[in-house]
Amino acid sequence: MRIWHPCTQMKDHETYPPVFMERGQGIYLFDRQGKAYIDAISSWWVNLFGHANPRIARAVTDQLSRLEHVIFAGCTHAPAEELAERLLAVALPGLTKIFFADNGSCAVEAALKMSHAFWRNHGRPEKCRFLYLANGYHGETAGALGVCGDRLYAAPFVPLFVPQIEVAGPDCQRCPHGQARETCDAACFASMQAAIDTHKDVLAGVIVEPLVQCAGNFRMYPPVYLAKLRRATLEAGIHCIADEIAVGFGRTGTMFACEQAGVSPDFMCLSKGITSGTLPLSCVLTTDAVFDAFYHDYADDKAFLHSHSYTGNPLACAAAVETLRIFEDDDVINANRPKIAHLQAAVRERFAGYKHVADIRSTGWITAVELYADPERGTPFDWRDRTGFRIFQEAVKRGAWLRNLGDTLYFMPPYVITTDEIDKLTDIALEATKAVLG
Amino acid sequence: MRIWHPCTQMKDHETYPPVFMERGQGIYLFDRQGKAYIDAISSWWVNLFGHANPRIARAVTDQLSRLEHVIFAGCTHAPAEELAERLLAVALPGLTKIFFADNGSCAVEAALKMSHAFWRNHGRPEKCRFLYLANGYHGETAGALGVCGDRLYAAPFVPLFVPQIEVAGPDCQRCPHGQARETCDAACFASMQAAIDTHKDVLAGVIVEPLVQCAGNFRMYPPVYLAKLRRATLEAGIHCIADEIAVGFGRTGTMFACEQAGVSPDFMCLSKGITSGTLPLSCVLTTDAVFDAFYHDYADDKAFLHSHSYTGNPLACAAAVETLRIFEDDDVINANRPKIAHLQAAVRERFAGYKHVADIRSTGWITAVELYADPERGTPFDWRDRTGFRIFQEAVKRGAWLRNLGDTLYFMPPYVITTDEIDKLTDIALEATKAVLG
Ligand SMILES: Cc1ncc(COP(=O)(O)O)c(C=O)c1O
Ligand SMILES: Cc1ncc(COP(=O)(O)O)c(C=O)c1O
Repeated sequence: MRIWHPCTQMKDHETYPPVFMERGQGIYLFDRQGKAYIDAISSWWVNLFGHANPRIARAVTDQLSRLEHVIFAGCTHAPAEELAERLLAVALPGLTKIFFADNGSCAVEAALKMSHAFWRNHGRPEKCRFLYLANGYHGETAGALGVCGDRLYAAPFVPLFVPQIEVAGPDCQRCPHGQARETCDAACFASMQAAIDTHKDVLAGVIVEPLVQCAGNFRMYPPVYLAKLRRATLEAGIHCIADEIAVGFGRTGTMFACEQAGVSPDFMCLSKGITSGTLPLSCVLTTDAVFDAFYHDYADDKAFLHSHSYTGNPLACAAAVETLRIFEDDDVINANRPKIAHLQAAVRERFAGYKHVADIRSTGWITAVELYADPERGTPFDWRDRTGFRIFQEAVKRGAWLRNLGDTLYFMPPYVITTDEIDKLTDIALEATKAVLG
Repeated sequence: MRIWHPCTQMKDHETYPPVFMERGQGIYLFDRQGKAYIDAISSWWVNLFGHANPRIARAVTDQLSRLEHVIFAGCTHAPAEELAERLLAVALPGLTKIFFADNGSCAVEAALKMSHAFWRNHGRPEKCRFLYLANGYHGETAGALGVCGDRLYAAPFVPLFVPQIEVAGPDCQRCPHGQARETCDAACFASMQAAIDTHKDVLAGVIVEPLVQCAGNFRMYPPVYLAKLRRATLEAGIHCIADEIAVGFGRTGTMFACEQAGVSPDFMCLSKGITSGTLPLSCVLTTDAVFDAFYHDYADDKAFLHSHSYTGNPLACAAAVETLRIFEDDDVINANRPKIAHLQAAVRERFAGYKHVADIRSTGWITAVELYADPERGTPFDWRDRTGFRIFQEAVKRGAWLRNLGDTLYFMPPYVITTDEIDKLTDIALEATKAVLG
């Protein structure tokens, strides 16, 4: 075993060797024996239009023969320019500038650095702290771990990062105010308001995952929370950073999750679906006001210095341009609606009432099924039993790559899935669950 | 202007708009007017075998039609497996495991996290500090900035990261011991030894750029320093982390810089040239001892959790596999030798004795020419005069993309450059310098 896989206890592979994937086609992955697996989680939430998508493949191939890469300081190129034009055209109003990075974690790092440096350039260097939500996740680098509300990822590395300020976030499944996500007024925002009031003089901004905390067990919360957050950050004069790395590009049903709250943040981080799941690329969208804080004569020493060798990689940008063309040509957001409805219903039909289901929740393409030992009494499974993992293994046997998150199963397939395939996938999911839990 | 470029004061673009690059071919970049530029710095030190290299393009195109990407937890695929096999076969002895990430900064983050977590898993959680060299550079994320010895990149963001422990490093140009790099015994290692002795109980490891601190103005130091470092870290029982992101893959004349000292580190970070400058990809190579510290039963909770969505991207891995095949097929390391000698001599012939040259230094493919207002008296140019930047602009006019680093010019071309092209490039460099400085 030469390769150390991410997010994996490698000893597990003594029992479950990694599946050797040979090729992909649409929603399917095929292993070396030719066995097909439905990619139910879009390969970590990145794939939008199917594997080996011919339009994306052609766009990248064309770019390969022209300009595979060039330094992005002092130079520009067609794929980056077209991507900037197309992305800013569909982005929320007020987002006018694009800064590139290579992956989600680095986009978060760039946004946090820009936010603090904005205040520094405005003579407020003490504004260097960030609020973040409990249960949130923003990546793996030290800055991203500082705003990570999920112990699992951060705890082993505590001495390596500056911990920012955690705020209790919305928890609609166990709402302390006894309200329902569909109808509430986000009374839970009070804790965020209190934290902003307490810390605002030293705050640079607040970072959140709009609508769905994906890595955080797919906790979902209503748009009204975001609307309140935008109002409160504007009032307090601090930045609102929307991490749409997982939820952007149609995942929640709208192009960007923030649309559902009718708010524009000061920074929006994007990655994952930006290239339809083909190549690593990320960006931070921001405002004229932020850009202008760095726009000075050279000798004023106010430039934003953050670069990666592969910033603005033309191949990744070409994949992203083609992604946005597909959104336009195929009217993807509208075309997705009936499929989203079908997926949500299909999961609910199969899992509602099943004895171990503690909650079923959906936002757009994302539907999560939370399994408990005893949902009535609110008793989860012992984590050492690895219930979710065992269900995943049963699903894999049956031809669905339905990777669990703890004891939560979730469905987040590529947008090219058909209603028949949705039925097949959700059938497999229930069978696999019953195979483990009876 | 929609795009915010990295490492750039955007106001500069009022005077110097970004050059719009249309295509690349071998060592040349071509703008939209068809003007050719020699890519003298390999597009931020990434390109090895020329732009739009047909072998690399074919490998990526083939992979595009098979499997563009797949989640790398629970799965594996041919490009990653072949890359692991080929890379570990040419890596230094003792490096047996490979962990993937997307760019250089993230490889550094992963190595630092692994190093600390290794000690934590061994019951030594207090071992969480790192030594790094003054003038060193390891990337832009918060963990990487904590080990950054170059104020320029770190100073604006000080409250966002945990500062590690800086050690005075080798400075051969102004050697306090009056020795020469070619013959010395690294007396300057004493400060590192002292820091190790002082801090060793809380140290996880030491991170260095072997032989050349590239971003740090191309300071170069001898292999004997690395040999001493390896010995001292072994004696103290702390990790040695070699950041070969810039110097790996033949840049210093050997496949890896550490080879010249005959030492294997505990961690080696690689990126940049790994895909011949085609796609973002990075990795950390490490030892069985490190791997084993995380290899436990699941319930022991000792796995290394660090993942990026695009970890092990098959397209980038395919480019990397083809890169290593080219190294083998074309016996690149040996074939490079006469070209390296020609480049070093060509720069020296032109610049030695020129009135503003303070130093000319070379290590393998990297040759740096440091310019001072008054080399005799050791007076640099005022940084606000932007001497280096103006020379860069003159070189661009003359068809060479010779991006300066402060007032240092440097040559780090793709390996496919010919001796004639080396002569042309170095001619342009001298003309551009004289156009600015007379
Ligand atoms: C909301 C969110 N932010 C940031 C990240 C980190 O992105 P990457 O894995 O590309 O570093 C992720 C990845 O899962 C994410 O879901
Ligand atoms: C030695 C070294 N380490 C790390 C990095 C960071 O790599 P990246 O730019 O891919 O984040 C660089 C990039 O210049 C480097 O030269």
